[in-house]
Amino acid sequence: MMKSERLEEGNASKVSVPSSSNKGISVMDLILRLVGIAGTLGAAIAMGTNEQTLPFFTRFVRFDAQYDDFRSFRLFVIVNAIVCAYFFLTIPLSVVHIMRSAARGTRRLLIILDTVMLALLTAGASAAASIVYLAHNGNNSTNWLPVCQQYGDFCQGASGSLIGSFGAIVVLILAILLGAIALSRQLKHRL
Amino acid sequence: MMKSERLEEGNASKVSVPSSSNKGISVMDLILRLVGIAGTLGAAIAMGTNEQTLPFFTRFVRFDAQYDDFRSFRLFVIVNAIVCAYFFLTIPLSVVHIMRSAARGTRRLLIILDTVMLALLTAGASAAASIVYLAHNGNNSTNWLPVCQQYGDFCQGASGSLIGSFGAIVVLILAILLGAIALSRQLKHRL
Repeated sequence: MMKSERLEEGNASKVSVPSSSNKGISVMDLILRLVGIAGTLGAAIAMGTNEQTLPFFTRFVRFDAQYDDFRSFRLFVIVNAIVCAYFFLTIPLSVVHIMRSAARGTRRLLIILDTVMLALLTAGASAAASIVYLAHNGNNSTNWLPVCQQYGDFCQGASGSLIGSFGAIVVLILAILLGAIALSRQLKHRL
Repeated sequence: MMKSERLEEGNASKVSVPSSSNKGISVMDLILRLVGIAGTLGAAIAMGTNEQTLPFFTRFVRFDAQYDDFRSFRLFVIVNAIVCAYFFLTIPLSVVHIMRSAARGTRRLLIILDTVMLALLTAGASAAASIVYLAHNGNNSTNWLPVCQQYGDFCQGASGSLIGSFGAIVVLILAILLGAIALSRQLKHRL
């Protein structure tokens, strides 16, 4: 009889305790996703509209820089758009988690998808960052000159749009951690 | 009495079933980590020893390219060395998981650390990849010329060392998936 009593105690705590403690985590998760939407959307728009034409030109050459000229910047815009759409699509799931804090399968799915998006966004952001670094500083041994003196506005726009993207990376890492914490709390109360 | 009997049945399955099914996963995890060591170590050495001096020079300039000339390549070597050391340090944990397949805390720790390493390695590898792309193709609007015609061996070395690093990224993603599968199997048998 001792054993069956302990089992029922376990059942009671399973219902009451995690539903209160995981609700806060789910609300934070929702807020993080909204911040992530703002960051990635801002980054994609700022980079996608980044363009500068210099005020002088010869008969054959017009000097202009566009994000499209750099493959890494194009990748950056695409990746940020994908992650922004992903954040948007996962908001309903996040709302469901606030109401049903015992959900396990969807939480695990979110952690795995968040990990994939983290890898994708990190790849895009750091590829763009390495080009921005090169534009600022150039490289001696390959004779690539820094172009930020000429294309000042273009460089500033590109550097600025990195901020939103790296902010979204932090958001994803926090979301994965929160998801893991919520899952392991459920375990503790269920075991 | 029914309840306590069911509880004991649950205990029995907890001991027997997961220990056989998770053993295979842990062995695969160990093999993946050994592959990861080979990939990152190869990538770090290949990039770290990458150097080419051209057979002609003027009185003032010696033409040579080293991995050190590019910040992104230096980051690439450092990140690969860190992840290689991480794989090496987690091998004992992986061996412990083969013997004690009911371990949960260390599995969760491994998943979180794997995620951090995945973000780190992806950042390093894609930053290096964007420079390699630029070295191969150059960029018109900033007048950065492709340098792979001159520095052919250097470019090949840099491109080749990316392979090991991207292989290690795949290894990390698989390791995270295996860890999540092992954890969720334990749950099923314990609940």
